[in-house]
Amino acid sequence: MLEKRQPIAVETAVERVAACIKTLPIIEKPLEEADGDILAESVIADHDVPPFDRSPYDGYAIRAEDTAQASRTEPVRLKVVDKIGAGDVAKKAIEPGTAIRIMTGAALPKGADAIVKLELTREEGDAVWINRRFHSGDNLSLQGEDAKKGTPILDAGRPITPGVKAVLATFGYARVKVYKKPTVGVIATGSELLDIDEPLVPGKIRNSNAYMILSQIKKAGGIPLDLGRMADDFEQSYRAVKRGLDVADVLITTGGVSVGDFDYLPAIYKKLGAEVLFNKVAMRPGSVTTVARLGDQLLFGLSGNPSACFVGFELFAAPYIKGLQGNRLPYLTKMKAVLGHDFPKANPFTRFVRAKVTWEEGDRAIVRPVGLDKSNAVVSLAETNALMVLPGGTKGYEKGALVDILLLFGEGRGEFSIENLSGHRV
Amino acid sequence: MLEKRQPIAVETAVERVAACIKTLPIIEKPLEEADGDILAESVIADHDVPPFDRSPYDGYAIRAEDTAQASRTEPVRLKVVDKIGAGDVAKKAIEPGTAIRIMTGAALPKGADAIVKLELTREEGDAVWINRRFHSGDNLSLQGEDAKKGTPILDAGRPITPGVKAVLATFGYARVKVYKKPTVGVIATGSELLDIDEPLVPGKIRNSNAYMILSQIKKAGGIPLDLGRMADDFEQSYRAVKRGLDVADVLITTGGVSVGDFDYLPAIYKKLGAEVLFNKVAMRPGSVTTVARLGDQLLFGLSGNPSACFVGFELFAAPYIKGLQGNRLPYLTKMKAVLGHDFPKANPFTRFVRAKVTWEEGDRAIVRPVGLDKSNAVVSLAETNALMVLPGGTKGYEKGALVDILLLFGEGRGEFSIENLSGHRV
Repeated sequence: MLEKRQPIAVETAVERVAACIKTLPIIEKPLEEADGDILAESVIADHDVPPFDRSPYDGYAIRAEDTAQASRTEPVRLKVVDKIGAGDVAKKAIEPGTAIRIMTGAALPKGADAIVKLELTREEGDAVWINRRFHSGDNLSLQGEDAKKGTPILDAGRPITPGVKAVLATFGYARVKVYKKPTVGVIATGSELLDIDEPLVPGKIRNSNAYMILSQIKKAGGIPLDLGRMADDFEQSYRAVKRGLDVADVLITTGGVSVGDFDYLPAIYKKLGAEVLFNKVAMRPGSVTTVARLGDQLLFGLSGNPSACFVGFELFAAPYIKGLQGNRLPYLTKMKAVLGHDFPKANPFTRFVRAKVTWEEGDRAIVRPVGLDKSNAVVSLAETNALMVLPGGTKGYEKGALVDILLLFGEGRGEFSIENLSGHRV
Repeated sequence: MLEKRQPIAVETAVERVAACIKTLPIIEKPLEEADGDILAESVIADHDVPPFDRSPYDGYAIRAEDTAQASRTEPVRLKVVDKIGAGDVAKKAIEPGTAIRIMTGAALPKGADAIVKLELTREEGDAVWINRRFHSGDNLSLQGEDAKKGTPILDAGRPITPGVKAVLATFGYARVKVYKKPTVGVIATGSELLDIDEPLVPGKIRNSNAYMILSQIKKAGGIPLDLGRMADDFEQSYRAVKRGLDVADVLITTGGVSVGDFDYLPAIYKKLGAEVLFNKVAMRPGSVTTVARLGDQLLFGLSGNPSACFVGFELFAAPYIKGLQGNRLPYLTKMKAVLGHDFPKANPFTRFVRAKVTWEEGDRAIVRPVGLDKSNAVVSLAETNALMVLPGGTKGYEKGALVDILLLFGEGRGEFSIENLSGHRV
């Protein structure tokens, strides 16, 4: 008896997955090991940045009023009473008629209210000549100009980039609180699958999905666990899934979710007592993408077709894996791009076309579908850096049309928002 | 005596660094460990993909001409003579009046020339009813439709993404040739620097640059080596640099390249016998960025100011580190964005403003400068995901202007091309 499945809209499916996100525990690690981790604490400036008035240049600290009469024809001469490197503090204050030689980053001496760049001075013995007028405040890097004490600087939930590290180091975070990363198990199903190092034989193909997904998991910040392959056998598959749920926070399977006689995942979810959140999405490819919940664990049943598997991962599994880490930007960035060539294919369902976006000579991004647009295509995935989103109910697009794309790189965004995408919203 | 330095254009500086790139040796590693590595071999399809005609759906393999008369009112009945799962090969051929039950991904049986989806059939005992006409070729996934044997699939020089991994797995690359990653040593100079876990004291700041650069190196695919700090002392600094050149492929220093009395890097380059490629670039921030060559090694002397250091790294050091790995897309992607608010600052030099690009409701990217636009700013680096490029010789920009930006994320491009950026091209 053929199971009837009720397709749901992409947005609804994304929302159902999002509702299951519970962030993992917070751990602490050395700052140098935290690249790409998600910050689990907000940072408020505990001191002014910079922490003192300082010189942004190599030159002389002066009292501006001493230069009030200075000109090319009548330069003023100031006596140099001290010399301070960065990290030093001047032992003397500046009195009228004196200057202090100062290096970039050094604290402004008492009495000084301006800096003259070295290039604009002429040194002579223990004095310096200045031939133009300076004003109070000229060339100062003022205490707190970058950030005042008490200012919120970093919000929890953001990935730790090089720039974020610079800020954490500035505020003394030798160790930093981040969210634990989820372990994500991957099981590939399908008796047609060969290991990567096996020779091809009639009827079989190599298991490309597992390598792809393990890599996608890393990109999403998860810790991938390769749990091997399972043949199209119910008992073996059931045991593999049970074991996967024991060892991983999240379990991803590829294949076995369709309606074929050897598609055992639906029966496995049932035997496990897992609640199926959805088993059909109004989209192409990946319409059979299934997500089930057992306690706090999600099981992602992705298509066995490489392109469908890829898209299902990016739309549903990646945001979940990022969400578990407290990442507040778990969704793909959406932008507009100009279609680089005709895409005449009619489009009954919302379609996520594997595409490549480039920035060429013009003002806008150009997007072009790559390779074969079929759910079982694999070669085109190498070129894919974006998904072109074509709403259902359209009759193809012409070169030059402005279309939505989702970027497969970069920071992401906080909300999933492909508004009214589908002609088949349920 | 104050050294006179001759500024060169950004493009010229980038070209001088590029001319020093010699790719590192090629190594082989397991595919599962190669994420983000740069592919060192080109891949040509050694078999058709898919390797055989197959079924993209669960359903029945048939002879199309058997359905020539089929209609809703007069469906045809075909005898089911076999059932094949993915990975199996049919034992029987299809004769007139027969069908074979077939699963997604299974090889097309002999005699069949079309697939009927399971949903469009009605099963009855050992037979199946079909109520519409199919044509030869309907619903087939044909041998070689994704890629023909002999087709170039992947070029050497590209980063290994999840999609590239899927392709490598498809073609049986259990191990893959990639370029060695360079070790990149980092030495922070400046007596004003405190370790990250030291309390602030007057005149001193914490060493944020080293953490930032170590993280930028990882992002560029290098292996970072933290070689500590050196005080503003010539002999100590010289020894630290010598040692750095012994242990790392590339050496980066921060600070010490300016014209101050404690800026020892120029003297160190001289004592080493290193050739200075440039020591002044017509840009802000980072004008003092210096690059020197000793044999096959480059020494990058970045500014001690965090923003200048960050920009100098991204424009000069990152492409070099990527280039050593054979990455053919070492430069930041350039695109156009709409300025999100006024930037009234006059602009005598080409300026690389730390900025944040977002894609909001409109059709174009919006870019906004973040925080304080000074070379010694650090807090704004946390928000920075792009550099806004403002050519020299301009008097500021108004909200809504279309400006060039360089993306700090994504794949990069093959050429550095900020055309005629500078009003001060030398």
